[in-house]
Order: sequence, then structure tokens, then C-alpha cells
Amino acid sequence: MNFIICNENAIYYECGYSNDNAIYLRLGSEAWFFTDSRYEIEATTSIKSARVIIDRDPLGMAVKIIKKSHIRRCKIDPKEWSIYSFERLKSIKRVNWIFEPDFSHKRRIIKNSTEIYNLSNAAKLGAVAFDNIAKEFAKDRFGKDEKSLYFQAETLMRYQGKYEISFEPIVAIDANAAKPHAVPDSSKVLKRGSLLLLDAGLKYNRYCSDRTRTAYVDNKFEFGYNQKFKSKKIQKAYDTVLKAHDKAISKARSGMRAYKIDSIARSIIEKAGFGKYFVHSTGHGVGLDIHEMPYISSRSRTRIEDGMVFTVEPGIYIPNKFGIRIEDTVVMQNGKAVVL
Amino acid sequence: MNFIICNENAIYYECGYSNDNAIYLRLGSEAWFFTDSRYEIEATTSIKSARVIIDRDPLGMAVKIIKKSHIRRCKIDPKEWSIYSFERLKSIKRVNWIFEPDFSHKRRIIKNSTEIYNLSNAAKLGAVAFDNIAKEFAKDRFGKDEKSLYFQAETLMRYQGKYEISFEPIVAIDANAAKPHAVPDSSKVLKRGSLLLLDAGLKYNRYCSDRTRTAYVDNKFEFGYNQKFKSKKIQKAYDTVLKAHDKAISKARSGMRAYKIDSIARSIIEKAGFGKYFVHSTGHGVGLDIHEMPYISSRSRTRIEDGMVFTVEPGIYIPNKFGIRIEDTVVMQNGKAVVL
Repeated sequence: MNFIICNENAIYYECGYSNDNAIYLRLGSEAWFFTDSRYEIEATTSIKSARVIIDRDPLGMAVKIIKKSHIRRCKIDPKEWSIYSFERLKSIKRVNWIFEPDFSHKRRIIKNSTEIYNLSNAAKLGAVAFDNIAKEFAKDRFGKDEKSLYFQAETLMRYQGKYEISFEPIVAIDANAAKPHAVPDSSKVLKRGSLLLLDAGLKYNRYCSDRTRTAYVDNKFEFGYNQKFKSKKIQKAYDTVLKAHDKAISKARSGMRAYKIDSIARSIIEKAGFGKYFVHSTGHGVGLDIHEMPYISSRSRTRIEDGMVFTVEPGIYIPNKFGIRIEDTVVMQNGKAVVL
Repeated sequence: MNFIICNENAIYYECGYSNDNAIYLRLGSEAWFFTDSRYEIEATTSIKSARVIIDRDPLGMAVKIIKKSHIRRCKIDPKEWSIYSFERLKSIKRVNWIFEPDFSHKRRIIKNSTEIYNLSNAAKLGAVAFDNIAKEFAKDRFGKDEKSLYFQAETLMRYQGKYEISFEPIVAIDANAAKPHAVPDSSKVLKRGSLLLLDAGLKYNRYCSDRTRTAYVDNKFEFGYNQKFKSKKIQKAYDTVLKAHDKAISKARSGMRAYKIDSIARSIIEKAGFGKYFVHSTGHGVGLDIHEMPYISSRSRTRIEDGMVFTVEPGIYIPNKFGIRIEDTVVMQNGKAVVL
């Protein structure tokens, strides 16, 4: 199969190195990596499986190599390429460009043991960071607003710069937690008795973690599964989300189609009367990208297999009141879902 | 003029609001802003100059509006659109799509007084952050490696989360400063007598600052223009870069073509015998994007005008030895360059 890619993570997956100005070309059994001179040392020492070509115009060099070859077909992901760059590829008249959306994500859907090791380490470090964040917030953060908490959470997720985050954390208090993608608000203040939603992840060797907890904030609090809220309605919603989360994980099996896992979680929330407040799908794959395949949605017919890694993250969002989400990342092993 | 844009900053420029899932459409004198329900409140309260349409498929709604209209031509920036999204636009058979690379950057090349106010505030806050970083590094940072310094510098540039950074800072010691885009290295340690290059910026109301200083690190040091190095060769290079920086700023005039400003800086470095070590162009425009027009390069024929904002950042990079860069952002006012 011939293909050409320009997405940084897609390239990393093919050859174990990448940067923000790189092109990777595969023609049959031969492969090339193109980048500019800033990255010469890193690229040449890291890449064994492809010829490294240094040029101020990486795409131009790739076009030259394709022109010299005799290929007639080459695959590209149309989501990845701009019209502008594709115009340069199209200048090679002989080649028939095959559009295949997400083809790198499809190649990456089953994780190997090294990838699972990285994802597992990311998840463990992320979990410890959640503990650190709870301690720090409980210690002296009452009265701090979401923006300050956000910065504090981000700093702790990064272990003071040692790791990168896999996405900007969501730190949302009470009614703000009802927005699945809340932006930190400096007028929302953490108090004793607040509901606090934290959704955050970090990267270990470029592989992402992703986790969400919702907590009742007291002098001492933790981001554990057991939470006691003063409000009965919140408690009922919380228990429902936790049950949906637990059942989806315990009942997921290799061989199932993804929509079935979504349906396990969704039916529990629907039965409890919160169906219309679960406004997103149950999960998404996690790997080099924070969102990749398989998607655990009501429409996804992907067949779940051992080695797939994805989130299970049911939620209930009551507009202007509160929001609850509990999320873990799992790997399918020996037919079952294991929390990373 | 009809056009459709999907770049976040390009959209912000047109209507004063934007987010990461938005489309902006202008058909003659009418304008539409499309986004999803997560952003409904912010979009509807912020945007006065366009109709706000909320839909889970913003591009799909834009396609519908274009189909209902009777336009025959519409401009797009081919660098901004993926092939995948453009396929959806192309489904509207009647419309002739005009490719104009960078057309939003062209619209934004002359800054108005509000934009200059924002850029000026960003620059002032950035300068204060440089002072804070020098104090912090001088206080207790000897022995810290580039990675720790990087995190410290980023935290201070962000004013503990109050501002966003306009790009990831470059913190480079000695030989690492010879790489114009050095990546922090945990084996490089700051010592008394080190050369330290800091290139960093922040955003004020979405507008970027950009500044670089190179300093001789002593118990007490500052990121000022006056630096005394122990090595004569480094001092000569430093004085040359400073002279190139000063002359390019003092001699820049509205009406000049951009390559002329590059040539003022470059000829000083060439005369001092460092020509081949000045490996990049003299500057770039700064605004909502950290790199925009005008480009101050040897090939840029853009005519400089009042209201343009750009960096002046000559440098000398001696591989494996040291690197020096001094950068300020200037605005053209009354025919001359004024440092922000």
C-alpha cells in the first residue's frame, strides 16, 4: 500500500519519531521521512525504518520522490491535508489519489504491548495527579475561582513541567459542570459543599491519559468513586452515572459492537429518568491522539477487540443546576475491559 | 465580496468572537456565524454583526445557506480548509470557489487603534514577565536544567494562569541557543557565566506579544540590551546583533518595501563577518496570530505602512557554540517604527 501522511501523531506511529514539520511517505516496502534542518539530528538518530531526507521544503522533496517512482495510486487522509498542500500533490498527474478518512486511526485501533504500557503509565500518573490535586484544593483552595483552580490543576497534571497534558483540563464547579466543555470562569468560586468536576489527562511517551471524577467538596475530599452529596437529586444522578460506568465496564466484551457498550450505559441512565440529560456518547478511543477509534456511540458498529483502548464516561447534565461525569480509560484484555 | 472561513482567529477578526468549532460566512453585506450548542450563550451575546446559527453541524448549515443564496463566486483560503471539509463546499455545484491563500492575513495587515492597544498591552506585560523571570532565575535557579527553567518561564509568562502564552517559550543555554528553535534539554544546566536566550510571548485580549533577549548570567542579571560576556567572540556577535536590531528599527520607514528592512539588519551582520550565521529572516508580522503579515524577509516586496506591527529579530547562531537573538515587536506610526 502506498500512502503519504503529514499528521504528527500519524507519522510518529509509523516510524517512532515526528515533529511539527514532517512528511512521511510509504511506497510499497520503502519509506521516507522528510523534515527540515532544525530536526536533522533528532530525526536521523531516531528513525531506523525510513530514509531521512532533510530539506527546507519537505513536501517538495516528497513530491520529487513520488514523481521519480512509477506508482499510480496513493492513499491520503482528506481530513489531514489542506487544499493548499494537496494542490502540490495533485501536480503529479499520473497518480490517482485515494481518499480514506481516518486511515491512520484505523491502523492504530489495536494497541500493541508497548503502547498499552505507555497508556497504562499515563493513566497511573494521571490518577496520582488527581490525588495531588484533591489534596492541594482541600488544603487552601477554598475561595479560589475556577481560573485559579484550572491553573493549579494543570500544573499538577504536568508534574511541574515533567509531563505534557493530553488536553486542557476541565475544572467546573456546580452549575458549570452542566456544560460538558465548560470554560473556567473567574466568578465561580470553590466552597465547602460545592460539586467539583475534574476532567484531565497527561501524556507518557506521547500516549494520552483521560479521566474524569465528580466530587462533593468538603474540608477533606478525594476524587474517589464514593461520594456523598447533601442534595438527594444530585446523589441520585451520581449513583446512576456510577452504575452506568460500572456496568458498561463490567459487561463490555470483545466481539461486541461498540454501540452495545453505549447502550448498556445509556439504558441505566434512561431507566433512572435522566435519559435526555446524557447528551454525548459513552466513550472514545485513546492513544497518541486524545480522541481516536473506537468511538463508543449509539451509532458505532465497530467490533470491539482485545487491544482496543477507550474511555467509558457516562454523564448527566442538568442545565443551570449541576453536571456529573465519571470516566475511566480501559483496555480490552482476554475479552474483558480492564481499567488502566 | 463573498467568503467563508473556518480559522478561529480569522473569524474572531470578522465578528469579535470565535471558538474551536465555528464557521463564518459573508455573502455581500450579510454575515452568518455558525457554531454548536456548547457555545450558544457566548456566541449570541458577543456577536452583533452577524446572524448566529446554532447547529450540531455548523458547516452543514453554512452549506444550506449558500445553497439557498444565488451566489456564483465565493472566496476561501486553501491553507485553512481541509480537503475533507472542502468536499462538502464543492457539493454546491453552482459556486465557483476562488482560492486566495492568506486572505484573512491580508485583511488584518494594518492594525487599528484597538488592536494596537491590545498588542501594546501584551508587549508591556511580556516585558514585565521577562523582568520577573530574570529575578526568579537569578534568585535560586542556578543548577536547574532547561526543562525546569522552561516551566518556570512559562508559568511567569502566564502570570500564574491569568494570561495565555502566544507560543511555547524558548529557554536555551549556551550551545543550545545556536538552534533557532531549541527544545528544552534536561541535561543543559544554568550556571553563573552561562549565555541564556529567552524567546517568549503572551496574549492580551487574544493579541500576541513576541520578544527575545540574550543575557550573560551572573548572580544578578537582567534581560536588558546591555550585556557583557567574558568571551570576546560572543561579545562581538552580541554587539553586532544589537546594532543590526537597533539600525533596522531606527531606519525603518513607512513606504519602504519589507526586504529593505531585512537588508539593513543583514548587511550589518554580513559586514561583521557573521553573514552565514544569520539563518532566518529579520521578522514577521504579529497580531491575532503569532506569525502573520508582513514578513520581513529578503524576498518580501510588501510595502510597509503605518499601522503594521512586526518583529525585528536579527540573530547569529554559531553551531555547537552559542546563539544570540534580540527581538522586539514594533508598530509603524507617523512613518517610523516604535517599539511596543
